[in-house]
Amino acid sequence: MSKIYTVAVVGATGVVGREMIDLLQELNFPVGRLVPLASARSAGATVLFKGENIDVQVLNEDSFKGVDFALFSAGGSVSKEFAPIAAKSGAVAIDNTSYFRMHPEVPLVVPEVNANAIASHKGIIANPNCSTAQMVMALKPIYDLAGIERVVVSTYQSVSGAGKAGIDELEKQARLSLNGGDFVAQKFPHTIAFNLIPQIDDFLPNGYTKEEIKMIEETKKILGDPTIQVTATTVRVPVFVGHSESINIQTKRKVSAAEVREALRKMPGVIVMDDPPNSVYPTPRETAGKNEVFVGRIREDLSIPNGIELWCVADNLRKGAALNAIQIAQALIA
Amino acid sequence: MSKIYTVAVVGATGVVGREMIDLLQELNFPVGRLVPLASARSAGATVLFKGENIDVQVLNEDSFKGVDFALFSAGGSVSKEFAPIAAKSGAVAIDNTSYFRMHPEVPLVVPEVNANAIASHKGIIANPNCSTAQMVMALKPIYDLAGIERVVVSTYQSVSGAGKAGIDELEKQARLSLNGGDFVAQKFPHTIAFNLIPQIDDFLPNGYTKEEIKMIEETKKILGDPTIQVTATTVRVPVFVGHSESINIQTKRKVSAAEVREALRKMPGVIVMDDPPNSVYPTPRETAGKNEVFVGRIREDLSIPNGIELWCVADNLRKGAALNAIQIAQALIA
Repeated sequence: MSKIYTVAVVGATGVVGREMIDLLQELNFPVGRLVPLASARSAGATVLFKGENIDVQVLNEDSFKGVDFALFSAGGSVSKEFAPIAAKSGAVAIDNTSYFRMHPEVPLVVPEVNANAIASHKGIIANPNCSTAQMVMALKPIYDLAGIERVVVSTYQSVSGAGKAGIDELEKQARLSLNGGDFVAQKFPHTIAFNLIPQIDDFLPNGYTKEEIKMIEETKKILGDPTIQVTATTVRVPVFVGHSESINIQTKRKVSAAEVREALRKMPGVIVMDDPPNSVYPTPRETAGKNEVFVGRIREDLSIPNGIELWCVADNLRKGAALNAIQIAQALIA
Repeated sequence: MSKIYTVAVVGATGVVGREMIDLLQELNFPVGRLVPLASARSAGATVLFKGENIDVQVLNEDSFKGVDFALFSAGGSVSKEFAPIAAKSGAVAIDNTSYFRMHPEVPLVVPEVNANAIASHKGIIANPNCSTAQMVMALKPIYDLAGIERVVVSTYQSVSGAGKAGIDELEKQARLSLNGGDFVAQKFPHTIAFNLIPQIDDFLPNGYTKEEIKMIEETKKILGDPTIQVTATTVRVPVFVGHSESINIQTKRKVSAAEVREALRKMPGVIVMDDPPNSVYPTPRETAGKNEVFVGRIREDLSIPNGIELWCVADNLRKGAALNAIQIAQALIA
């Protein structure tokens, strides 16, 4: 008989938490017992898992007794306090928040890219930022093929990256906007319906947002190469699910678009959708709900000798969050 | 008494044509007689100008008799045939289509940037692509300040760039989408409501779209420097009016964000909106209907020694089309 595991999901009633629970079932993860955890605000809630309604428990210091894997997605402050407690209780904490990502003793892992980093964990493993996770999936085969000098990325990020409140705000504003009604931005700093907001997370004194700095620093850590230069502009767009990225890559060695396409086709978890004459390239609407990272518009940059342009789309709740966390757990039991 | 002019608008019933007529009035252009022209499909239509309904006339070879300025925005094939006829009739044709833009004998003009190019015209002057026009407005002060080596731009372009059919399609799809209805993409190659389409215009064999190549070539022509290297990714977004651009600029000489901000503040037609701690930066919704080009998120690129990142938004129907065409006419009579 194969082993089964007790899996806790912290933030079980959130958008990512629910996706984690769905994926544990969809991916047939060997769950013996599911422990959905949330704050007192979710008291009385249940989650559906394998046809059964399971009561959500209020997170506390004793929540992790007997837990093998604790998947955290309830905000940085919750992870800060409870991931060490989970680890001390003997669980492996897989943390979807940014809190531990750059900690030198915490591996930051995208299994297809740097599964080897998992072994060094001390009870906590970090899941990267959603925008970073999909980007490194596209960068890794190119890095192995030709080296990477510099990356210039501009993102087009969906509202689900801001949780259920983000989804609700887009839907509400879009309805009111189409019907000529008035509304005030609440979740986002400006109107998001039929608009763009070039700000995700807070600003730093250097003019970048924290989201942009995450993409810069996490990319270097996951690819294990601090010499890769990255700059990012992150923008919220009126899309419900799916983050898109326009990525410009300056490689060390000249490579053709055909070589890059071939390398990406061989990358596990990546699907190349790239047939321009037939308007085939990924769009967020078509890739929402899918587990893979989709890449298209692969072409040689006309502005430098060693450049590649591409367009990368993935479901931010899946590869960008819940899926990657569960893949880390899968790698641990493999 | 100051001089008055006969102004023809070719494509008078289109989104840009109507904007041209509104702006002739708003900017108090000295119009003696307005001649709205369109194809036979618009027979019977009228346009409102200074409180008067004026009959739209069917465009033909005799339409330009006595016309001083002929503003074209009815598609490349119409300009190809009729702009030379207008010029031969003694009018100056100001063409908003791409047909003549790269013709070596046709000036391509953004008045704040290269008004000096106007003098060489031989009856036809080209108006740049909407995305190019706003970008060169942001680039020019930086070019003058520090020189430009390379530009990497990703666009976020509104549906009004595809005319009334584009606006109608977004509105219709958004309503159906919110109410769970079915629909088929017609104007755009994919669904645009709550989605992104990384394709504007047709693809070329090198994998770029024509829209992207326009941005590359027109930028060099307007700035008068073929050594500037440009690469572009152009993306349609579910916004009604206003194009946005994430622009990465590698300058020849190191400049600070403060110097760039100061140079942009002095540029006529540009408004700097750049106060990150207060979430002040331009968004398309807030800048639609305005004549200026708005720039924010100005910061020093962390990935190279001489780099500047910025975010540029403008009303694509105004500076990107109708306004710029009328500014060219204003420069001609100045």
